[in-house]
Amino acid sequence: MSKPYVVGIDIGGTNTVFGIVDARGTVIASSSIKTRKHSNINDYIDELYTELTKLMEATETVDKIHGIGIGAPNANFFTGMIEDGVNLPWPTPIPLAAMMREKFGIPVAITNDANAAAIGEMTYGAARGLKDFIMITLGTGVGSGIVINGQVVYGHDGFAGELGHVISKRTNGRLCGCGRTGCLETYCSATGVARTAREFLEIRTEPSVLRNIPIDQITSKDVYDAAIAGDKIANEIFEYTGEILGEALADFTVFSAPEAFVLFGGLAKSGDLLMKPLRNSMEKNMLSIWKNKVKILPSELKEADAAVLGASALGWEAK
Amino acid sequence: MSKPYVVGIDIGGTNTVFGIVDARGTVIASSSIKTRKHSNINDYIDELYTELTKLMEATETVDKIHGIGIGAPNANFFTGMIEDGVNLPWPTPIPLAAMMREKFGIPVAITNDANAAAIGEMTYGAARGLKDFIMITLGTGVGSGIVINGQVVYGHDGFAGELGHVISKRTNGRLCGCGRTGCLETYCSATGVARTAREFLEIRTEPSVLRNIPIDQITSKDVYDAAIAGDKIANEIFEYTGEILGEALADFTVFSAPEAFVLFGGLAKSGDLLMKPLRNSMEKNMLSIWKNKVKILPSELKEADAAVLGASALGWEAK
Repeated sequence: MSKPYVVGIDIGGTNTVFGIVDARGTVIASSSIKTRKHSNINDYIDELYTELTKLMEATETVDKIHGIGIGAPNANFFTGMIEDGVNLPWPTPIPLAAMMREKFGIPVAITNDANAAAIGEMTYGAARGLKDFIMITLGTGVGSGIVINGQVVYGHDGFAGELGHVISKRTNGRLCGCGRTGCLETYCSATGVARTAREFLEIRTEPSVLRNIPIDQITSKDVYDAAIAGDKIANEIFEYTGEILGEALADFTVFSAPEAFVLFGGLAKSGDLLMKPLRNSMEKNMLSIWKNKVKILPSELKEADAAVLGASALGWEAK
Repeated sequence: MSKPYVVGIDIGGTNTVFGIVDARGTVIASSSIKTRKHSNINDYIDELYTELTKLMEATETVDKIHGIGIGAPNANFFTGMIEDGVNLPWPTPIPLAAMMREKFGIPVAITNDANAAAIGEMTYGAARGLKDFIMITLGTGVGSGIVINGQVVYGHDGFAGELGHVISKRTNGRLCGCGRTGCLETYCSATGVARTAREFLEIRTEPSVLRNIPIDQITSKDVYDAAIAGDKIANEIFEYTGEILGEALADFTVFSAPEAFVLFGGLAKSGDLLMKPLRNSMEKNMLSIWKNKVKILPSELKEADAAVLGASALGWEAK
């Protein structure tokens, strides 16, 4: 391979993390800049160019980069645009792929962060060798990347795979940032777990170590710590979360009959606290032909590298 | 094309319908046999061979058949088997594709009836030119065939696309034939409409022409006739059905972002009675990026030919 490296760039609301990755999935160098430092997108791209060039020179990979992959919110693989309705400091839509291609003179591909994670997991992680799986990212929200027959599903318009927005509760559902109520991500994200904690603590009277924290400051991490320490309510919060997520995974299975779900993000690292009720609920709700057949796998990408790795994997496909 | 015809075979619980189809989707000849006449599968295949050979001879298409496509319940495209748990008179699993290939000396492919319908619609019907759509068959049950990027989704094991079994009601849901409760098909199939009629008539006191029919004999056709004649309860039954189906289609959209849903089957011919509440509900429940963008199209395959056409379209892919 004459160009044996790719660049992965993860554009988050706060930081933009980027790195140079080899074909085995090793991040050989990485760095970051502040996403919000420049109110002009051209200045932002200039700084990214300067910093990435430094990294390439230090690693002697200038002219050895096959492509650049970018994971960004609302990024459309088909159009190469960051579309409207996103929390970034520049006017949208942004023709990011074209702008980056012009600046760097290298093929560029972009997609949203959950699809990038799915490609990363398929290329370097828990989904190596799987052709049909669904990546579920449990972060501030719930994201997803669906892989069918080895291909990420982009759908008609490039936005497929918004599984955080299936409706889990049709009556008295929680208000979602999308404007609707009852979305999966209002229950099964880190934010959702914190909301469940507030609800449970308000409705119930049992003691809980969570009551020592101001109720509007409780995080999913606090709930995790309390549950690990044996707190009853905290344990029930994880059971409730796992139950709802399990119902959703059973529903997703009838769609694409995946071999596995790959879970990524803070909550995915809760171990049996989440996994046990999740598996029980998924199997309880599963159509019989898929009972005890669909795996739930934790991500195998290191959290620190995952975003860059996921994005970089797309760099191999960039044109 | 040296072999410009295909054979389509639709194996139903009662009748097996088959026909010879040209490349433009014209059924040039068709016939049927009784599925349950032979308790031995070999005798059944022998009769099918005899009858199909007559058709081919009459139409001078012997040696001009590119392939045979078969739509059958629980038929697995990958394995060529009719799997367990199906209402047919022979022991399962049945290696049907291999048996037919041996008997006829022609390539054979099999899949379930809803996938066959999707391929038929893409090849000859309402989905010509669409690469991303979801076929929903509203019959005794609710079936589906999902097409992504021009390919039917078979999933890891060949059984993907059982959308009649997503859970529409998580509390007090109706018992489904699958053993679980609340499945979409318990509400939005012909049988589901009849169940809704029974529920509404028992709970409510208003007059309705449906009360002239013994309650356990009401069919979806009776409800349709009553609604067309202006019956209030009958109209509300269609509104209820459309509302639940619309919620489901909005959820399906976040999965694969289809350009259209194609509806097939008796209920799909109810016109505005179903379509109006269905569209309203789908749009009301739709994530904003897809609002007013996803079409709902009625099937363009003639009901009498649809099963044979759908199966036959698979014949072009048979190997």
